[in-house]
Amino acid sequence: MSTTPDAVTDGRDLSVGMVGYAFMGAAHSQAWRSAPRFFDLPMRPRMTALAGRDAGRVAQAAEKLGWASTETSWQALVARDDIDLIDVCTPGDTHAEIAIAALEAGKHVLCEKPLANSVEEAEAMTAAAEKAAANGVRSMVGFTYRRVPAIALARQLVAEGRLGTLHHVRAQYLQDWIVDPEAPLSWRLDKAKAGSGALGDIGAHIVDLTQFITGDAIGRVSGRLRTFVHERPLPSEHAGLAGTAGSGRGEVTVDDAAVFLAEFRGGALGVFEATRFANGRKNAIRIEINGSKGSIAFDFEDMNLLHFFDGTEDVATAGFRRIVVTEAQHPYVGAWWPPGHLIGYEHGFTHQVVDLVNDIAAGQNPSPSFADGLQVQRVLAAVETSSDTDTWQEITS
Amino acid sequence: MSTTPDAVTDGRDLSVGMVGYAFMGAAHSQAWRSAPRFFDLPMRPRMTALAGRDAGRVAQAAEKLGWASTETSWQALVARDDIDLIDVCTPGDTHAEIAIAALEAGKHVLCEKPLANSVEEAEAMTAAAEKAAANGVRSMVGFTYRRVPAIALARQLVAEGRLGTLHHVRAQYLQDWIVDPEAPLSWRLDKAKAGSGALGDIGAHIVDLTQFITGDAIGRVSGRLRTFVHERPLPSEHAGLAGTAGSGRGEVTVDDAAVFLAEFRGGALGVFEATRFANGRKNAIRIEINGSKGSIAFDFEDMNLLHFFDGTEDVATAGFRRIVVTEAQHPYVGAWWPPGHLIGYEHGFTHQVVDLVNDIAAGQNPSPSFADGLQVQRVLAAVETSSDTDTWQEITS
Amino acid sequence: MSTTPDAVTDGRDLSVGMVGYAFMGAAHSQAWRSAPRFFDLPMRPRMTALAGRDAGRVAQAAEKLGWASTETSWQALVARDDIDLIDVCTPGDTHAEIAIAALEAGKHVLCEKPLANSVEEAEAMTAAAEKAAANGVRSMVGFTYRRVPAIALARQLVAEGRLGTLHHVRAQYLQDWIVDPEAPLSWRLDKAKAGSGALGDIGAHIVDLTQFITGDAIGRVSGRLRTFVHERPLPSEHAGLAGTAGSGRGEVTVDDAAVFLAEFRGGALGVFEATRFANGRKNAIRIEINGSKGSIAFDFEDMNLLHFFDGTEDVATAGFRRIVVTEAQHPYVGAWWPPGHLIGYEHGFTHQVVDLVNDIAAGQNPSPSFADGLQVQRVLAAVETSSDTDTWQEITS
Amino acid sequence: MSTTPDAVTDGRDLSVGMVGYAFMGAAHSQAWRSAPRFFDLPMRPRMTALAGRDAGRVAQAAEKLGWASTETSWQALVARDDIDLIDVCTPGDTHAEIAIAALEAGKHVLCEKPLANSVEEAEAMTAAAEKAAANGVRSMVGFTYRRVPAIALARQLVAEGRLGTLHHVRAQYLQDWIVDPEAPLSWRLDKAKAGSGALGDIGAHIVDLTQFITGDAIGRVSGRLRTFVHERPLPSEHAGLAGTAGSGRGEVTVDDAAVFLAEFRGGALGVFEATRFANGRKNAIRIEINGSKGSIAFDFEDMNLLHFFDGTEDVATAGFRRIVVTEAQHPYVGAWWPPGHLIGYEHGFTHQVVDLVNDIAAGQNPSPSFADGLQVQRVLAAVETSSDTDTWQEITS
Repeated sequence: MSTTPDAVTDGRDLSVGMVGYAFMGAAHSQAWRSAPRFFDLPMRPRMTALAGRDAGRVAQAAEKLGWASTETSWQALVARDDIDLIDVCTPGDTHAEIAIAALEAGKHVLCEKPLANSVEEAEAMTAAAEKAAANGVRSMVGFTYRRVPAIALARQLVAEGRLGTLHHVRAQYLQDWIVDPEAPLSWRLDKAKAGSGALGDIGAHIVDLTQFITGDAIGRVSGRLRTFVHERPLPSEHAGLAGTAGSGRGEVTVDDAAVFLAEFRGGALGVFEATRFANGRKNAIRIEINGSKGSIAFDFEDMNLLHFFDGTEDVATAGFRRIVVTEAQHPYVGAWWPPGHLIGYEHGFTHQVVDLVNDIAAGQNPSPSFADGLQVQRVLAAVETSSDTDTWQEITS
Repeated sequence: MSTTPDAVTDGRDLSVGMVGYAFMGAAHSQAWRSAPRFFDLPMRPRMTALAGRDAGRVAQAAEKLGWASTETSWQALVARDDIDLIDVCTPGDTHAEIAIAALEAGKHVLCEKPLANSVEEAEAMTAAAEKAAANGVRSMVGFTYRRVPAIALARQLVAEGRLGTLHHVRAQYLQDWIVDPEAPLSWRLDKAKAGSGALGDIGAHIVDLTQFITGDAIGRVSGRLRTFVHERPLPSEHAGLAGTAGSGRGEVTVDDAAVFLAEFRGGALGVFEATRFANGRKNAIRIEINGSKGSIAFDFEDMNLLHFFDGTEDVATAGFRRIVVTEAQHPYVGAWWPPGHLIGYEHGFTHQVVDLVNDIAAGQNPSPSFADGLQVQRVLAAVETSSDTDTWQEITS
Repeated sequence: MSTTPDAVTDGRDLSVGMVGYAFMGAAHSQAWRSAPRFFDLPMRPRMTALAGRDAGRVAQAAEKLGWASTETSWQALVARDDIDLIDVCTPGDTHAEIAIAALEAGKHVLCEKPLANSVEEAEAMTAAAEKAAANGVRSMVGFTYRRVPAIALARQLVAEGRLGTLHHVRAQYLQDWIVDPEAPLSWRLDKAKAGSGALGDIGAHIVDLTQFITGDAIGRVSGRLRTFVHERPLPSEHAGLAGTAGSGRGEVTVDDAAVFLAEFRGGALGVFEATRFANGRKNAIRIEINGSKGSIAFDFEDMNLLHFFDGTEDVATAGFRRIVVTEAQHPYVGAWWPPGHLIGYEHGFTHQVVDLVNDIAAGQNPSPSFADGLQVQRVLAAVETSSDTDTWQEITS
Repeated sequence: MSTTPDAVTDGRDLSVGMVGYAFMGAAHSQAWRSAPRFFDLPMRPRMTALAGRDAGRVAQAAEKLGWASTETSWQALVARDDIDLIDVCTPGDTHAEIAIAALEAGKHVLCEKPLANSVEEAEAMTAAAEKAAANGVRSMVGFTYRRVPAIALARQLVAEGRLGTLHHVRAQYLQDWIVDPEAPLSWRLDKAKAGSGALGDIGAHIVDLTQFITGDAIGRVSGRLRTFVHERPLPSEHAGLAGTAGSGRGEVTVDDAAVFLAEFRGGALGVFEATRFANGRKNAIRIEINGSKGSIAFDFEDMNLLHFFDGTEDVATAGFRRIVVTEAQHPYVGAWWPPGHLIGYEHGFTHQVVDLVNDIAAGQNPSPSFADGLQVQRVLAAVETSSDTDTWQEITS
């Protein structure tokens, strides 16, 4: 174990400290635990410490999730000499503070998405990351879905030119968990904590994924945000939620849904939709890309499949191919099971750990970087401004 | 047979004259021929006369398609005493002139979509239709897809409240027939003849269908039109196409694709996309509607299916139901085959004839009316203006 | 019109007389009517006469279905000089008598499947057909599903060697129309009229289709027939049904379901299932064939699709291709609509007419022949014997 | 830690020793590791020791898979006092010897399927298990797929009567990993080691699954086994494979495919197919069950989905429901991720560990028991005898 970043990669261990232990914390824990069991890693991750504000609950979580020790503040975690990497799994309003402090302390950082709740914070984080990188400290933002094998295969096909010139990008992230107007308020519906609603929580993913797969960037947007249900019942524990005083209901301060048109810099026309009100769709990340030579289609509700149309085939036998992305030849898959034995949601987190550990060991900057996260944040901000002003907005780069 | 419209409904025959005999002409002919063989109609359609400019070709088409006589001008057809109804199957630039003349001559009119190439023409046609209706002369615009049983069932479900309050409308009309940049110019790529490209040709259908299914109307739009391929080889016969002088290539003067956001008056948020560049998609009319109680999903590439999610079911057994819309209880289906025996594209045209003949016999105005066609035209015009000006556009009603 | 068969092909007309006017009669009528409107035929079918026992009902049917005249016995129809072809659409117990008489009278014959209710009858019909063929009289058995474009494409792929050596044939014909034990008796549940139940009615189709697609023949079978519901309520009109005396219920004398293993002569292993008790499946003809180089899969509930796996492709991008069989390059499709515009159940009947008329005009024997129908009958008989005796049965050829 | 079985359940730990570390060993390791991280278990599994013949390789595997110590014989493992449970992950020819010895030593046993390579061995194992159970020693056979949530839900629906009386069971287990005749020999193709081929390896699963879901048992079978490729190239390491002497190729001594008809005791008619030659199908466990009130359909290539048809619904809106089995209300799912976040193949193994640990702690016999495994073995043996003798075979119970 070492406190100088360069020395880290010389050792066998990578000592991890994680902040937050809810949904993302559980997923990250399983990834740190599983990665070395299936992949050959140059460093061995150690689940050293877990941080959370409530001593009792963090202890219970550490026991359950398998972390060796606990801290009751992220500051204490960052201050520990025996930690090489800080894994930030808290709501977006705390990302900037924690990540910047960690980077300044010479810790590598894995930060959940969205990178931050504002462009300003994301800019500060990116500056900190670039400064730290000069000292060999690495940072990555957790756009985990990039590591779903079918998505990685889609990117390969585009990069190899199998789709030709891209004309259309069609992306939807459809959920329905708050379609019931009596579903309670949560921090995810509170602008102060979450930054935005469907836009930042799930829209961020399809912005990142489509830019990743196409290798292109969104240049302009025209969007519309919408809140369908403006007040919701308070949950039993509601300390810290804004707008809750004096009643059994609280205000929803974020968007329930966000839609936008997008022009990619390379010429493709994009249509995006993120919503928590698509009744019957649970986690449907649906991406279709149409190019001059071919097309791909993906739906996370069938995450082990990629549909690929090769427009150069004989027309009599051309058709979308249902590729079961479980072959050893597919990205990440060789480490898992035989063909046809599916993997699930959390495997993307394991792949993220694998790539991150490899990059740290190799002394190279991981991808997606904080700069990538910042660029996504700029797209989200442009959508929000567009919606507020009824105008098209340019994304500055 | 009769020359006074009111008398028409007293007789047994409905004498039809059709203008145009290409793709739409073939579909309409099969509909006039088949409707009385499967449905009990109050009047018997007679395929009396077919009009086209080239005497030889119209004679050949009449022989092939089963029309009893021919005319070489639509004016001659409209002038005939033995014609009760004019069926307009020509490109959009001629609709207004023919339909208005026919209505003024006391003929019922079935006019292919889009109703016209401009709002102004559509307004004139609507005025003529309303004036004629006062005299018992009926008119209908051919948004045939409304008569696909799965679509009619979707409308029923919405009307019955099975979807609750509507939140999302997601509609795509995806084709790929000109994704090859060497596909030749045709009248459909010529603004003078076609009015617009993907927007008017196929976008019109999804505007009509979503308004039909929801029982709602689009109030505002923000859109983007795009032409991916600006010049194409001229076909062997290219007389009459603009921009063709002095070269083997001609200019594409319409949009290859159109995308737009829409706000429905009732509060639903719409996302629309019409394109002829979706490689691998042949005639994919895809419509999804999400409401507070349920959702529907439809794809014309599986036109006999409707997917319906009932959000009021027990969560453990809820799921999108794949309804095979081939039961006697489904709209239009009882006249055809036993359950599971699919119908095809042209059956919608037969259903259109059935409804039209029934309405004429009953002395009532058919739906969709010319006014409905005009409203669609206004949405299309608003999308075009929005694209030209980078603004949201209101649809005046 | 002519009474000598050879002369028939010299004329322009093919005068058709049809026996029976229920479900199959309606389908055949639409085919005779539509074929010349979409395809270029060497002879023009004339819907000359319709025969049925009840004068009033046959007259009504002829008016509805568009037949020019009627007869109240098939004998009278066969005796008419102005009929060139007899189209047999009656239950199976009458096929042999009508078809043999027609052939002996020099009429071409199109006979619905199954060819007969017993091997003996089918043998007599085949002998009559072969004798007639020597005089230029043609005969065909109506295994219509062969003419679904996706099925015809499947056969092409096998014939071209795209599947390699065939290992597996998996075929199911699943319906559910009598799963309700209170569904009434009908002639289809009466062994005297129908010969057998699911086995002959729908099992016959998958026997024919798999032999057609593979170009191979079934050599041995082990089967099991099962009747789940042994008594059913009598329908309001029940004259002529066996076992109905003195009660409101009658005996089901045929199988509700039939399953069998099959060894194809070429080495493939087959698994077959025909049932009217597959709750939720309406007309699911599902065929999968796996070969050393590739596979195909088909489901009639998506009849415009063929799924094709090309096992010679690179493993990273191999997958079942969803071929939308609506391209001009596909069998029969060029005569219909543009890509993606689906066709339906009855189009197979139209294609059957097209092929039959072409063969008659060309003076060649159509396919499937009565001999093909006999061979299917032998397979069905072997399945029945196998079920009765708990043994494997050879199919003699 | 304790050496008397009863005392085990009083402690907090359950000390596991595993024999074998190939494919199944990796899956079981992940299950032992993950179960306590997601589920609340009454005992804490300890991955105490791993046994394998090659000291170097077993040490490497233990390091990779996370086992605390190693043994080079299963006998040594069974002899250890600090082991409470033996997890048998070796080929089928060794199951009986290891499991019986372990049971006799008072160790709980989890034994991979098929329980044994012969009915005789399975009978001996079952006798040993029953004797041990009297002393509080538990045993379970690893038919893991029972613990896929969609399968568990299917069983629930049948048990609740949602399908009514069962008519049809249709089950296929389709793989294609040896369709290439040049795929090398492996122990799975060697009768001495594997007992049988597709029949025992994958056919065993669908026998167990259909009996599990239906709550019924197969009473009679008529089957056919087939070997398509009789000789294959030897792998580089081929010591111990039979029939390999003196050449570069060895004999395949097991079936490549097995098909059989089955009569369930409760009256349902079954059709089964297990093959490693279904080109393009990777791990397609496909099960359909049709009953008088409803149906279910499942395909492991979409393992998070269950399709359910409720035949009691209004016919106009009835249809197979695509249930995404990722809700907290679904079996096992509550411990994992939010709705729509899929799980994968190995999660079934985790659920198996969860159920096993709960049963051990509660002092009750787990399911499926060795007796269940024996019954499956009897079905497999009956299929084999049936194929050898061309007869139907009864399954004695």
